[in-house]
Amino acid sequence: MPLLSMRDMHFLLFDLLNVESLTASGRYSDHSRETFEQALTTAEQIGTRYFLPHNAEADANEPTFDGERVHTLPAVKEAFHHFVEAGLLNASVSFEQGGMQLPATVAAACHAFTTAANTSTAAYPFLTIAAANLIEHFASDPLKQSYLPLLRDGRAAGTMALTEPNVGSSLADITTKAMVTEHDHYLISGGKMYISGGDQDITDNIVHLVLARVVGDDPGVKGISLFLVPKWELLEGDERRRNDVKLAGLLHKMGYRGTTSTVLNFGEQGDCRGYLIGERGRGLSYMFMMMNEARIGVGAGAAAMACRGFQESLEYARNRPQGRHPDDKQPGSKPVAIIEHADVKRMLLAQKCYAEGSMALILWANSLVDAIAICEQPDQRQQLTELLDLITPVAKSWPSKYGPEANSLAIQVLGGSGYIREYPVEQLYRDNRLNPIHEGTEGIQGIDLLGRKVWQAGGAGVRHLLAEIEQSAVAALQQPETAAWGEQLQHYAALWQQTLQSLAPLLQQQPRLGLANATLFLEATGHLMIGWLWLRQALAAQKLAEQEPHLAAGKLAACRFFYVWELPKLTQWCALLQSADDTTLTMQDEWF
Amino acid sequence: MPLLSMRDMHFLLFDLLNVESLTASGRYSDHSRETFEQALTTAEQIGTRYFLPHNAEADANEPTFDGERVHTLPAVKEAFHHFVEAGLLNASVSFEQGGMQLPATVAAACHAFTTAANTSTAAYPFLTIAAANLIEHFASDPLKQSYLPLLRDGRAAGTMALTEPNVGSSLADITTKAMVTEHDHYLISGGKMYISGGDQDITDNIVHLVLARVVGDDPGVKGISLFLVPKWELLEGDERRRNDVKLAGLLHKMGYRGTTSTVLNFGEQGDCRGYLIGERGRGLSYMFMMMNEARIGVGAGAAAMACRGFQESLEYARNRPQGRHPDDKQPGSKPVAIIEHADVKRMLLAQKCYAEGSMALILWANSLVDAIAICEQPDQRQQLTELLDLITPVAKSWPSKYGPEANSLAIQVLGGSGYIREYPVEQLYRDNRLNPIHEGTEGIQGIDLLGRKVWQAGGAGVRHLLAEIEQSAVAALQQPETAAWGEQLQHYAALWQQTLQSLAPLLQQQPRLGLANATLFLEATGHLMIGWLWLRQALAAQKLAEQEPHLAAGKLAACRFFYVWELPKLTQWCALLQSADDTTLTMQDEWF
Repeated sequence: MPLLSMRDMHFLLFDLLNVESLTASGRYSDHSRETFEQALTTAEQIGTRYFLPHNAEADANEPTFDGERVHTLPAVKEAFHHFVEAGLLNASVSFEQGGMQLPATVAAACHAFTTAANTSTAAYPFLTIAAANLIEHFASDPLKQSYLPLLRDGRAAGTMALTEPNVGSSLADITTKAMVTEHDHYLISGGKMYISGGDQDITDNIVHLVLARVVGDDPGVKGISLFLVPKWELLEGDERRRNDVKLAGLLHKMGYRGTTSTVLNFGEQGDCRGYLIGERGRGLSYMFMMMNEARIGVGAGAAAMACRGFQESLEYARNRPQGRHPDDKQPGSKPVAIIEHADVKRMLLAQKCYAEGSMALILWANSLVDAIAICEQPDQRQQLTELLDLITPVAKSWPSKYGPEANSLAIQVLGGSGYIREYPVEQLYRDNRLNPIHEGTEGIQGIDLLGRKVWQAGGAGVRHLLAEIEQSAVAALQQPETAAWGEQLQHYAALWQQTLQSLAPLLQQQPRLGLANATLFLEATGHLMIGWLWLRQALAAQKLAEQEPHLAAGKLAACRFFYVWELPKLTQWCALLQSADDTTLTMQDEWF
Repeated sequence: MPLLSMRDMHFLLFDLLNVESLTASGRYSDHSRETFEQALTTAEQIGTRYFLPHNAEADANEPTFDGERVHTLPAVKEAFHHFVEAGLLNASVSFEQGGMQLPATVAAACHAFTTAANTSTAAYPFLTIAAANLIEHFASDPLKQSYLPLLRDGRAAGTMALTEPNVGSSLADITTKAMVTEHDHYLISGGKMYISGGDQDITDNIVHLVLARVVGDDPGVKGISLFLVPKWELLEGDERRRNDVKLAGLLHKMGYRGTTSTVLNFGEQGDCRGYLIGERGRGLSYMFMMMNEARIGVGAGAAAMACRGFQESLEYARNRPQGRHPDDKQPGSKPVAIIEHADVKRMLLAQKCYAEGSMALILWANSLVDAIAICEQPDQRQQLTELLDLITPVAKSWPSKYGPEANSLAIQVLGGSGYIREYPVEQLYRDNRLNPIHEGTEGIQGIDLLGRKVWQAGGAGVRHLLAEIEQSAVAALQQPETAAWGEQLQHYAALWQQTLQSLAPLLQQQPRLGLANATLFLEATGHLMIGWLWLRQALAAQKLAEQEPHLAAGKLAACRFFYVWELPKLTQWCALLQSADDTTLTMQDEWF
């Protein structure tokens, strides 16, 4: 059974998003559809050969800490090594830096295969890529010269050390301190928690990106700086020094068990050296650059796991005979494969909608990254950036909410088999449940979207999004098969826009009430976007109707499912939002 | 922190359902509100002292099988013993048989505490109670004399051995055989799978209730008989014989790990003795009596776990400071407890709705059992039975769907802490995910409801339910605080009824299409009933507004939440159902 449908990945990249067109730009001119497909095939092979086989084993045998060292399965280190060797760690890094110089869209599609195979092991290289990109963008040349090569060739892994035990999502309140010294480093002291990959035995070194406040700097977000804190500090020549970063303990997660989740103490001995990245006080803005990438990455992981569960349950439903059609009352008749039952088809169609819809959203978000990178017109680049900023919380959240939902449906298709660890879907369900939490919870994404993103640049991102939606709706209106969906999409887009406008004065006058239902607004925005992307998929699939009638019929059926079962939810949601309902806001602690 | 809110349990039993009124009947005349409350307190103590402490431990240390014997934690056996000693195993058994002779409603409320504490350990006594009740109803006197005392005093546990590896939910197709012998027993041969408690080291003996087909009997459901198959067969005097039932292996579940899930081989040595219960060929109807009880029991378990997760996340939200209100831009200001955030209140309110709504449904279903038991008018008893039959699939399914959803919200309230095993909510989420699967999946309950139950006795059950709903709506219309909800309830009840009527001809003419969206009809029915029960809770709470203003305000707020956020979903669902949408039915295998 495939990890993911390669045909669908090609459909999304080439038929939906026309990634091939990127090869017209200088940066990607050495590439072609063939090289993109080769990269995908390589990723699929690495995923199947090196990530998948130890997925359940790593889940059953979590990393351990003996007080001195962390122990992970040898297969994790091996998979990391093969990922690096195959060039996947530097998939989108430039040729001159030794990378494959692939578009972000293609790189994301490649990474989906390793995540689908084993999200816990995939987490180590992904954190490393994110850390390396941040260092490349913001660190000083000497720092880059020292640590970037280690990260780029997999000798070191990266971490994001943001969260603290008593602070959680409220980064403004972090208490980790950085003390100025007479050397080029600061002395870091404080504790961090839930740091993924915070210690491990996979790479020789670890580079922590740590948020801390220089002693005496402002309280709140403006006083936060970003530091590079190596586990092993590089000294002159080949010398190196074990830095004062200590693993206080491992946390034990429900899923994602192969990835260490750590409590770290910085500077217990008073000698934890950290190197300032960029300017003092701008740490959070640098981290947000990494975090935005990581947020889309979280959505990508959720989408990949949704797709994997869909494949698993599809295969099971095709091969499991059980029960009969309601009009077959013959006791001796042959049972049918469960895929014949309408309710099983419902669960598979819903998974297809959630999984392929999420993947379309993620790849489209990455296509904006690519479009920005090659865009030569400042105005247009600006527009694309505004659009990407706007939709980042949606790309993080919608797949993270509906991916686990898809995995729950996969369990349900398998029934009792779905609930036992002898089959892989229950692990997907557990693994995927982290995604609505890390890199900013769903609630935080909602406030980011409704409290900030939709108003940025005078609502420019919203205008760009609505223009994209309108363009697809108009195209759909030209075709009899899609015209009704085009009308529906126009209707819901207008409803969503009215809803947003109705919230504008409220957010000014009563911000608590205005933001009270922000999570619902986030979900409504996600539904609108996924509805739009399903229509785009239907339009792209229609062009293939002759060559690949099954693929086209499947995409049209999934689009129909979304327009019948899902999109109409916007009616109730928008009514609730427009009424500025204060049921949640006015609830009192003592009434619970 | 309490396992469950005792105040809410009292509210549901005494204020909502007026369980005290049962003491007017002969059967319960020795009881009083005080004895009911004492039983609840006992159950809470047993749950807290003996079930809770090993809940996480039993999850982390699953039962093992060394090829000879199963090993469970000693604490499981101890908890079982204390459950028996406290009288909870025979909570609703008559005084003359050594029981507490409690109403089913009170017994269910008692059992909610032990389930909330540890659903895996609670499964052993619950299966035992169900098996004992079935034997008491249908077995011959000699069988009863031999095995019932063992089950009633906890020396033996019971199992339901229905499912087979290649058959699953389609019981008509079971292949386990029973061969007539010249003795009073049959020889059973075949394999069963997913048998909870199928082997263990907790009780001295195990009584399996096994569905099998006597060789030569009809295919399909009419040829299925029910057998009592003891692990240890009782012979003359104190002698006993190890029966030919063999554990082939244990299955490894995502949750519910403390309960063994077994693959059993009957008759590998050709000498597995089974004793016919009742008449040949009527096995499935007897089993359904047990299964209906078990189905409400599954809903009860889901409700109890939802309530427990709600308590845990409520406590966490009250004590965790983090973040500020949107209108507080002061960096140095003190963080608020997260319960102050509207989105956290939303997640707590939704949990309250799902958890207390589910518990109300379960206790109300049990109150029908009690009303039937004491009813002296045959007509009325008939009506109550029709109503109970109708709502059983809803009582099973709605809590099983929304209970895990509540537990997911509990995780989200705790954030990163919710995802780690250092806190108890992730286990609830895993444990509760079994409930939409066992004792008939959600899809099967939907077909049972729409394909069978709503039409039974000419739709009598539906008429009774709608009459109940109308009565509450009319009561609500009398009060200004509840009048709008009364109108809404009338509106949605009428919509639901129209929907059902529109499906009637379709089910006759095109049964595949008529049943295609049965699961959605099940969910819609559940939402209507929970909306009705929330209105009843609001009406009951209003009477307490002076003495307990917080409780009353909380119930009214939760009712409001349900009427704003949940009940309006019926509009879309009923439109979809009335349109006889065939999106799922017409989807083809090869299009996926």
